[in-house]
Amino acid sequence: MSKLAIVLASGELEKIQAASIIASVASTLGTEVIVFATMDGLMAFKKDVVEKKAWKTAGELGKGMIESGAPLFIDTFRQAKEVGNLKMYACGMIMDMLKLKIDDFVDIFDDVVGVSAFLGMVEDAQVLFI
Amino acid sequence: MSKLAIVLASGELEKIQAASIIASVASTLGTEVIVFATMDGLMAFKKDVVEKKAWKTAGELGKGMIESGAPLFIDTFRQAKEVGNLKMYACGMIMDMLKLKIDDFVDIFDDVVGVSAFLGMVEDAQVLFI
Amino acid sequence: MSKLAIVLASGELEKIQAASIIASVASTLGTEVIVFATMDGLMAFKKDVVEKKAWKTAGELGKGMIESGAPLFIDTFRQAKEVGNLKMYACGMIMDMLKLKIDDFVDIFDDVVGVSAFLGMVEDAQVLFI
Repeated sequence: MSKLAIVLASGELEKIQAASIIASVASTLGTEVIVFATMDGLMAFKKDVVEKKAWKTAGELGKGMIESGAPLFIDTFRQAKEVGNLKMYACGMIMDMLKLKIDDFVDIFDDVVGVSAFLGMVEDAQVLFI
Repeated sequence: MSKLAIVLASGELEKIQAASIIASVASTLGTEVIVFATMDGLMAFKKDVVEKKAWKTAGELGKGMIESGAPLFIDTFRQAKEVGNLKMYACGMIMDMLKLKIDDFVDIFDDVVGVSAFLGMVEDAQVLFI
Repeated sequence: MSKLAIVLASGELEKIQAASIIASVASTLGTEVIVFATMDGLMAFKKDVVEKKAWKTAGELGKGMIESGAPLFIDTFRQAKEVGNLKMYACGMIMDMLKLKIDDFVDIFDDVVGVSAFLGMVEDAQVLFI
């Protein structure tokens, strides 16, 4: 796979963890990866949510991930950004709707973009909706 | 992207809104879009659900979308159908299972099809499962 | 579609049913299908969960599927494996994390693999995240 794009719309920790692991492994394998965080998938990166580890979970698996102290998606995405070609974008529409600023989120996004700009970037990519 | 297909299986408003916005923007950009509504994604188009705005939500974001009176997915899909090349299909299997008729849904679907027919239509498309 | 890959991460019966039907129909149409079960999508195949039909559901639709006694995803996947070219893989990372063995799951998986091996298999496939 030469290019992978992920629309990250789920706020459930299990799904976001899966997204971060797929993105990280693909990136390590040399794939260009683009992540577009929107809806509850974007909310999961809010500073107050991250500080309190207040993510939604699908169930026990997600709760166990939080309690175990295992590395979570923020770390996984950050490491992948350092090692590979991974870019992360925050959804401008949701930020406008909720009057949020980029400072309300942990420092992980490369830019704030709209759906139109995102679709322009993923023309030739395999796109996953998570 | 020349062709985008969306399997809309989620009943959560946030996910359906995301689907409608991606479909609408892609359609505006000249992409042929095919939406196949099934499972709870189909139920979200039932007349009684739409009238009462009785959609499931993942959380506060979805509830806020309903309360704000902002345009929701029904309008977004309809406008995209008027402007671009967007077709919407209802899943025949779920309709049979629940003994539902096309009249039980708001007027938005181009046809009722099965999974086999849908897969035949999306041969060369980027497919998203939402 | 010549090759379809499904990352099955959802534990909701409605989503898993959708996955099994898409996989089965695609397989019948001659498509090579690869399913990678992870997170709650893997847990749905645990022997104790299957015996008790203790799957999570998104709502009434899923509950009705269990109560109706209609064929569920285990049967659908198994039949597709007999008839078509469908391979199913369990996620090794989640099994390690939860100290689970392949014997803890119903007999349906061809192998236990990691994300890296899975991504290597789906290079030229249409990938769905469910």
